[in-house]
Parts: sequence; structure tokens; C-alpha cells
Amino acid sequence: MAGSDEFEIIARLMRPLAAGAPEALNLADDAALIPGRPGYELVVTKDAIVEGVHFLASDPLDQVAQKLLRVNLSDLAAKGASPYGYLLVQAWPKAAGASEREAFAAGLAADQAAYRLSLFGGDTVVTPGPALFSATMFGWVREGAMVRRDGAKAGDLVQVSGVIGDGVLGLKAALGELASERLAARYRLPVPRLDLSLEGASAAADISDGLIADAGHLAAASGVRIEIDLARLPLSDEGRAFAAAYPEQTLVALATGGDDYELVVTAAEPLAGFTVIGAVVAGSGVGVFLDGAPVSTGRAGWVHGRD
Amino acid sequence: MAGSDEFEIIARLMRPLAAGAPEALNLADDAALIPGRPGYELVVTKDAIVEGVHFLASDPLDQVAQKLLRVNLSDLAAKGASPYGYLLVQAWPKAAGASEREAFAAGLAADQAAYRLSLFGGDTVVTPGPALFSATMFGWVREGAMVRRDGAKAGDLVQVSGVIGDGVLGLKAALGELASERLAARYRLPVPRLDLSLEGASAAADISDGLIADAGHLAAASGVRIEIDLARLPLSDEGRAFAAAYPEQTLVALATGGDDYELVVTAAEPLAGFTVIGAVVAGSGVGVFLDGAPVSTGRAGWVHGRD
Repeated sequence: MAGSDEFEIIARLMRPLAAGAPEALNLADDAALIPGRPGYELVVTKDAIVEGVHFLASDPLDQVAQKLLRVNLSDLAAKGASPYGYLLVQAWPKAAGASEREAFAAGLAADQAAYRLSLFGGDTVVTPGPALFSATMFGWVREGAMVRRDGAKAGDLVQVSGVIGDGVLGLKAALGELASERLAARYRLPVPRLDLSLEGASAAADISDGLIADAGHLAAASGVRIEIDLARLPLSDEGRAFAAAYPEQTLVALATGGDDYELVVTAAEPLAGFTVIGAVVAGSGVGVFLDGAPVSTGRAGWVHGRD
Repeated sequence: MAGSDEFEIIARLMRPLAAGAPEALNLADDAALIPGRPGYELVVTKDAIVEGVHFLASDPLDQVAQKLLRVNLSDLAAKGASPYGYLLVQAWPKAAGASEREAFAAGLAADQAAYRLSLFGGDTVVTPGPALFSATMFGWVREGAMVRRDGAKAGDLVQVSGVIGDGVLGLKAALGELASERLAARYRLPVPRLDLSLEGASAAADISDGLIADAGHLAAASGVRIEIDLARLPLSDEGRAFAAAYPEQTLVALATGGDDYELVVTAAEPLAGFTVIGAVVAGSGVGVFLDGAPVSTGRAGWVHGRD
């Protein structure tokens, strides 16, 4: 974007989001400055979302902004890191005007307050294509305390936070295939599990691709096999109602649907706030069972490109 | 991007770019981990480039990748920071295949070697629009040693590195309006001035928007006025040839054209590798002179949105 309009918009909408964060240098510089924090390490995640792919043109832009921050915060939650701040790329179509920019900034402001984050900097450009937003999110962990994906050991318990499957049910609700405001809101505004302690966890991932797929990432990184008992999945009332009618198909759908933004962890002991759903054993891959019988999960969850 | 193809491409093209960088966690995690470096602070910059806006669909993709890294490295150079590593967002049109991805990765590999960088992580997505790439670049500075924009003081000398104006001449050459392979290459592959010491500089910026505009950013941030004598601009042979015919118009064009990726600094003393072109005085804004007479620069350089 060119000219004084863009500088005015940045000053009016973005600078307040950086107020109080010396790291942002008042957004008057080309860089942010992150001071060292003795005894801590910096965890960094980066996700991009594209209009028409990861969100719909009709989605309220304040919620799009919040979802962008939250999917990144969910990655921090899976590392046991505390949110710190973020850099933002906004690529806006030429047709986007002040009201779109204001709605997006309002969403950022709401979640900055909710998660105690500051904007550190970024870049705003015009695109001839659909809107695209990308955040680089920073969090702090105590030195050596980051929970990785590759620490799961045979004998560990496999555990998940919250309930599984509301993400995919929420997508159905957002698409109008299911009448539930609660589930639609759950899909549009996932809640990163920053409230949970990962103390004692040997490995962790957030559930974005689907429980089975994300458990598979842990198994692959750790060189172990993960076995999951679908009968032990914690479900919401809605999930339970569906599972009552068609247990196996429903449980597989909920365990592969994705967008839950809950955590799947392995640990020697049960962790507070988590439900044990299986065990880590020697081998590779993910085994899924229901009432003791193996269950085929087919294509195990939507696999996002991630590098 | 979905499915095993994307995982295969990431493994084949991206993982080698992260080899040897423990920060990247082998690109098998959702996050990168940056250990503290006692006595240092982390400088972070973020730029996005869009096909059809910042580069052309016909531009070789290896050079697009290199330019993305180099414009970010130029920001680090202006801070006096040493390059460390980067996160990358790649948004590829559906039609982009393995050969495009390979060309882009080859450009990354070339500049990682040239500038001793590692890939730390990122995200790859498909877009229904044009290609978009974004990098978050990390560099280290000694604690308290980062050169900011707001330190220019009345009495300081205004100085620039290299030659001014080859960026805009290079754009003309790249567009075929000017026959010079050297200048076209200069535009496509700017050279970030990481070779220069900023020891003693009170303020600095890289010249992306144009010398006058970027000097204006220093003046505004520092609360001072910068006066520049166009007769003192260091020019290339080509720049000098043009300036000989129409001195004032040419010098204004070269000083407002942008894309030089040289540095403009202020310092009490002349710095090695820089040419003194003016002085910092009390007041505000930028005054431009030629042979002692004020020169109108009109619209002072292309103003990118940047926050």
C-alpha cells in the first residue's frame, strides 16, 4: 500500500496494538528488538491463513484475526511456552477498505488483551488475490523445559485435554449442516489450552490435523507406537449424542476431524486436566481400538502442509 | 497443501535447508526453539512479497527467493545485526509444481550459504491467488548496540554507503527500458550491506523507499531536520552519465527511486565505506539542495506500507 493513507492506517490501527511493548520500537522502525531473558529460551511458531482456503470471505474479520492468533497460541500451548508477542503480515485485496482493516484490528486487540500479547511489528501489502494473513508468534520457556514431539516412551500414557471432535462438529455447524451456535463458535474461535501445565509430559502436540494424525506425528518423531481406545475419548454432549447412534463411524470421524486445538500428550503419570485414552508401546504408527477390536480409520485426518 | 506429496516436498526441499540448525528441530515440530545468547539481543524483521506487486510472474523463482531473503537481510544490516536464521511462509498457487518449488528452494540454499543462514521453520499453504512469500528474519546484536532510527542529532553528518540510484536504474533495465545487464541484476539481486560496520552511527536505515524518503524516516523518528546536497551523491558510471545530461531531474530521480538497499546513516564522524552527503540540523523534514539552491523533490519516493 502506498502513500499517506497507509501510514495513517498503520498509525491509527496498528500502533495502539504495540503500545507498551518496547520490543516494537513504536512500529517506527523496520525491526523489532527482543531482549534476552536469562534462563529462558524463545519458542517461535509461524502460520499463514488464506481467504477461501482457511477462512471464508464471509467470516467476520475480527474472528479471522482472533483465529490466526489462536492457532499460533495453540502451538505455544503444546510446547509449554508462555505467550509473549507476535509479528503480523497482512496482505489485503485492493477492495478492502478502512472498515475491514478496523474489524481485523479489533479482533487483534481483543485477543491481545485476552492472552496478554503485544504486536511487535510486521508488514502490510496489497495483493491482487485473496486476503492472506500470517503471524510469527513468540513465547518463552524455561531453558530446557520445552516439550518436544520426540520424547514419548513405551509405557507412557496417551492423554488428551478437553473434549475431542467438537472441531469437526463445529465446522459442520459453521457450514449450516448442524444447528448449534456453541459448536459453530467453537470452530470459529478455538481456545488454545494455555491454562494447562505440561509438567511431566514426555511429548505433546496440539490437535489441529485430527487426534489420530497428530498422535501419529508424536509416534513418528518419538519412534514408538501409540494405541488409542476410542471408547475412552472425552466427548461433548453433542459428540456423545452422535456417537450413541453410530458409535464406530462417529468416533472415527471425531478422532480424525481436526481443528480441536486441544492437546495430545504422553506422560508416565496422568496429568491434571487430561483424560487417558491409550498407551505408548514399542513399534510404529497409531493403533485404534474400540471395545478391544482394531478399527480402521482410513485416511487419518486432514494433513496440512507444515514445515 | 494436503497429503503425502506436500510432506515429501517439505522433506526433500526444505529439510536440507534446516540441516545443522538445532533451532529448527528438524522441521518435525510446530515450532522453532531459539536459545538465549548471553549479552546479545535478537533483532527481528518481517517482509512479504506478492507476485504481480513486488515481483513478476516471469521472474526466475530462485532470484525471487534470494530477493526475499536479501531485503530482510538489508533491514538487519541497518540495525548492525548479524544474520542468524529465518522462518518462511510460502503461499503457492495450485498450478505451481515441483519445478517451481525446486527453483525457489535452490535460491534459498544459495543465499543461506552466502549469508550463513539457516531455515528455522514456517508454513506452506495453497492459495487461489498469486504466489506470496514472507520471511521472518532473525539477527543478533550485542546488548544495547542496535542502531535505531531515532538517534540522529543536530551536527551529525548524513552519510550513504555505495552508490545511490542504481536501484531505480536497475528497475528500468529489468523492464527493458535501459540496456544494462549489470543494472538489471542489481535490481533483481540487491546486496545487503552486511559488510559495513555501523560503529559510531547515531541512526541508520536501509534505502528501500528512496534516499529522500528513508532519510525522512530518520528525521521524523529523531525529531531533527536532514539536509542533503545532491551534488555529493555517490553515483555509478551509468548514474553519472544520466546526471550529466539533466542534472537536477536525474539526481532527484536517483535520490527518490528506491530499491538501492544501501544504508543511510547519521554519525558525528565520517564512517569507513560511507560518503558524506549532508548534515543533520535542528528542525524537521528533509531539505534537498543542488549547488546551494533548494530543489523540489515532489513526491519523495515510493512509500511502502510498513508496520
